[in-house]
Amino acid sequence: MNGLRFTLLARDGTARRGRLETAHGAIETPAFMPVGTAGTVKALTMDMVRQAGAQIILGNTYHLMLRPGAERVGRLGGLHRFTGWTGPILTDSGGFQVMSLSARRKLTEAGVTFRSHLDGSAHELTPERSVGIQDSLDANVTMQLDECLKLPAPRGEVERAMELSLRWAARSKAAFRTRPGYGLFGITQGGTDDALRRRSAEGLKAIGFDGYAIGGLAVGEPQDAMLRTIEAHAPDLPEDRPRYLMGVGRPDDIVEAVRRGVDLFDCVMPTRSGRTGQAFTRFGTVNLRNARHKDDPAPLDPESGCPASRDYSRAYLHHLVKSDEILGAMLLTWNNVWHYQDLMRGLRAAIEAGRLGDHVAAFKADEARSGPLP
Amino acid sequence: MNGLRFTLLARDGTARRGRLETAHGAIETPAFMPVGTAGTVKALTMDMVRQAGAQIILGNTYHLMLRPGAERVGRLGGLHRFTGWTGPILTDSGGFQVMSLSARRKLTEAGVTFRSHLDGSAHELTPERSVGIQDSLDANVTMQLDECLKLPAPRGEVERAMELSLRWAARSKAAFRTRPGYGLFGITQGGTDDALRRRSAEGLKAIGFDGYAIGGLAVGEPQDAMLRTIEAHAPDLPEDRPRYLMGVGRPDDIVEAVRRGVDLFDCVMPTRSGRTGQAFTRFGTVNLRNARHKDDPAPLDPESGCPASRDYSRAYLHHLVKSDEILGAMLLTWNNVWHYQDLMRGLRAAIEAGRLGDHVAAFKADEARSGPLP
Repeated sequence: MNGLRFTLLARDGTARRGRLETAHGAIETPAFMPVGTAGTVKALTMDMVRQAGAQIILGNTYHLMLRPGAERVGRLGGLHRFTGWTGPILTDSGGFQVMSLSARRKLTEAGVTFRSHLDGSAHELTPERSVGIQDSLDANVTMQLDECLKLPAPRGEVERAMELSLRWAARSKAAFRTRPGYGLFGITQGGTDDALRRRSAEGLKAIGFDGYAIGGLAVGEPQDAMLRTIEAHAPDLPEDRPRYLMGVGRPDDIVEAVRRGVDLFDCVMPTRSGRTGQAFTRFGTVNLRNARHKDDPAPLDPESGCPASRDYSRAYLHHLVKSDEILGAMLLTWNNVWHYQDLMRGLRAAIEAGRLGDHVAAFKADEARSGPLP
Repeated sequence: MNGLRFTLLARDGTARRGRLETAHGAIETPAFMPVGTAGTVKALTMDMVRQAGAQIILGNTYHLMLRPGAERVGRLGGLHRFTGWTGPILTDSGGFQVMSLSARRKLTEAGVTFRSHLDGSAHELTPERSVGIQDSLDANVTMQLDECLKLPAPRGEVERAMELSLRWAARSKAAFRTRPGYGLFGITQGGTDDALRRRSAEGLKAIGFDGYAIGGLAVGEPQDAMLRTIEAHAPDLPEDRPRYLMGVGRPDDIVEAVRRGVDLFDCVMPTRSGRTGQAFTRFGTVNLRNARHKDDPAPLDPESGCPASRDYSRAYLHHLVKSDEILGAMLLTWNNVWHYQDLMRGLRAAIEAGRLGDHVAAFKADEARSGPLP
């Protein structure tokens, strides 16, 4: 069949357990996508990413279009062949990074023009160009170009950006080359305004997409505002299509969003934290820079399946981090990416078993045993 | 038995094929030891080092005594347990790094005092302290403290340093705790002066060591002077003990030294080059920073057993290096460490088969197909 097949396998309350099938394999949902910004999940080989249990990774159109260039990646056989990641790949539209360039970009109805942060060269990103780039990259999931605002923002601004994003959604759909195992996702906007979110979803559904993303959250608003918005907004989205909460988040954000019916997530947190000495564990986060780990022979988690979590002492990890050794970034990133996959495995099993409530309660009790990320 | 067992298995001319047995396993010689400076072979997991075929790694006493501290490593179970490297480990004496601090160190008959490059704190390294540190680190091969000069140096200076190193050799031997599977190596000095080298070897043999290292070469002298010195000096060393040429070198240095009867090598070149975009291949070195690799779909070596050499295009490696991605350092270091192990595997097989001459000729023809390291 054309596009992406999505099958709902189980439910627990509003939480969903599904399977998304692509030309490069299936993704069991709820799923977390490690971020592979510039064609690499930073500090890991793709084999390490695979061993952690990740089934799909995310690539950043903005970074890849500037270096090495989308057409170059296309000539080299696409992102799968270029990077050695043989599983499914989702790419973002490039919009989020471009919007954050603020002074260096200019937005019009046509699209957005901007200057590269690398060399100042001028570029244009339109809905059509973004879809074309993602086609060159051979992305299994293409994201429409949208305008994502920082929150809080005036309601008029939020509405304008939502309406523009809808017009860009229609142009993205028209530009997308339909083919088996590849799909296009629309993105709802509307900030934390339920009525705007509903109008956004209605507009997208009228166009028709393989999946529906919730954009423009986790951009400055409090967690409870985000969760309240997701809870009100999830019923606006088609039951039979995957739902992707973009750029989220911390483990507890993910757990709460899964409860509210979200299927897909991505965030730089596990990878970025791994390069700054932060480890995610079942019992909260651990800052390996802290001198209290100097003489600690205990691993991060003796029961983890991840070699980085299980086979090295905190004393050794502390030493690597303090010495700015590359291996420190490698091991902590591996631990973190594996931890996020463990989190998703646990959520999937709990939904299948119909015991998500108990699972979430146990998760919160474990997390409470340590402090939050500083 | 106490100490280290060394067995000569084959010869081809003056080249030797041997086996050195330690408490943590055997080393097939000739062997190259990747440098694991501060308890990590930079940018690799120990599993990647093992997969490359390395049988022994080197740790730096200077770096480890300053951070995380030798006594701390000792309390944590030694370097094997600390780093996860279960095979044999050789540690240097710390002397080489300390001597290179020049303005920050003071040499006396007793030893050398110096200030840490990390925090300026004062430290002392004596022959006894160096042996004690290496004991704490659980090194299978302990190196005596010696004085290593930069060449060229006045003959009087070279002689003085050689004689001091001999007295330190005797003190190192007296301080060494003899035990099964652990050994102490003496180090000859004397620059490129054959007579001084001979006196140095005679002095060491009178003391008696598990192995004999040639120190103070590859420190500024031309390659032909180094090779001439090794050729004249090798017969000074006991036939039935391993010979270790310290800090050497490029592949062609190693090949020529193996022909002259050397068994063990170490050098930062494969690891350091891997972090600056240089790849060693059968056909010479490749600078991945060079723009000519931008669109090259070919891997570094399709016939290599190393995933980094075989499974990624030069275009991808170029992209990673230009983008300062950690994965670039990981893959190029892996390629380089694997290449050095391939080199040693080839030399061992050639000596066993009695065809070292042909093997070296083929090696040189292959290397000549590309240019030298810039």
